[in-house]
Amino acid sequence: MNLVTCRASISLDGFTAAPNQSLKNPFGEGGMSLPQWQFETEQEGRSADAKILRQAGEVGAYIMGRRMFGPGTGEWDQEWTGWWGPNPPYHAPVFVLSHHPREPLTMEGGTTFTFVTDGIESAPEQASKAAGDRKVVIAGGANVVRQYLAAGLIDELLLHIVPVTLGAGERLLKGVGGLKLNPVEVVASPTVTHVRYRLS
Amino acid sequence: MNLVTCRASISLDGFTAAPNQSLKNPFGEGGMSLPQWQFETEQEGRSADAKILRQAGEVGAYIMGRRMFGPGTGEWDQEWTGWWGPNPPYHAPVFVLSHHPREPLTMEGGTTFTFVTDGIESAPEQASKAAGDRKVVIAGGANVVRQYLAAGLIDELLLHIVPVTLGAGERLLKGVGGLKLNPVEVVASPTVTHVRYRLS
Repeated sequence: MNLVTCRASISLDGFTAAPNQSLKNPFGEGGMSLPQWQFETEQEGRSADAKILRQAGEVGAYIMGRRMFGPGTGEWDQEWTGWWGPNPPYHAPVFVLSHHPREPLTMEGGTTFTFVTDGIESAPEQASKAAGDRKVVIAGGANVVRQYLAAGLIDELLLHIVPVTLGAGERLLKGVGGLKLNPVEVVASPTVTHVRYRLS
Repeated sequence: MNLVTCRASISLDGFTAAPNQSLKNPFGEGGMSLPQWQFETEQEGRSADAKILRQAGEVGAYIMGRRMFGPGTGEWDQEWTGWWGPNPPYHAPVFVLSHHPREPLTMEGGTTFTFVTDGIESAPEQASKAAGDRKVVIAGGANVVRQYLAAGLIDELLLHIVPVTLGAGERLLKGVGGLKLNPVEVVASPTVTHVRYRLS
């Protein structure tokens, strides 16, 4: 199996999104401070952030939860092709966890969506076969990341620790106790602290 | 006023203590993984942790909450001299926040306890006068740290980010939203990631 990794921008008080996430506010209302470090990384003093972002882009395949791909939890609306329009930003095979079968979808720009109905263990296996020698990324949402962490199916967690507090929102690690990790790489930038952990 | 700082060992999911804190288990049941990095720092590969610990020890005065010094919330039991016996581990002036006045206490080893009844703003002023050119440390508990953060009275927060998850316990930053910090120093060790933040 390929390396299975997850990355998230997380506030100092543990949130990966502010309250009231929506299509218009994917990081919640007031949560844009979380992804902000990823912008304008070509500016002076931002080379560490730029390098982290470049490395993060080298992905062989993605895994995501049902609600990250589309609304509802029941049978699929066959017209629904994701939130992102005809050319989604993944440009790689994407495996969508679902309780409802659906034929694969091929989009523009190299993104394909394959629907996985036989459990969370199956997705990393299918994604590994599709990823070549590149890593498999758990794209989210946070509930899917928690399921994979609790099941011991994540090899690596890359946290971009953003020096703000949100006070409320979605907690990446809520209820996932008992993990022991090893910090294998720490990259300090003036804006964010990047820590790459190996799960042990 | 002197630099007012606070330091805490914090789990990756944001806890500074596991559930059920007590005199026997000051970090809660199962929470000893939090302070663990402070031990055996003379061993090979631990020089970064040793340096951080040495710097942290250079304290001019401490501020602590009522419950960190003693039980209850009412009038003082005049016989009570703290949890630590005749020679407390502070070896410096300690200012205890309380709603009830009490005469100062002088202990062995250089520790004095002064009881501050005129509000949280008063303690940093009194502590600064006592601290010489050294820093003032908010010793805890977490509720006191949160009050000082919310009031904008902390200059610096040093977090020792311990790579474990506890799942439950006391959250250092619970309900303290809207902070913006600057990571001014990051020290990576194999055991813990130390980040020193300036409050802005």
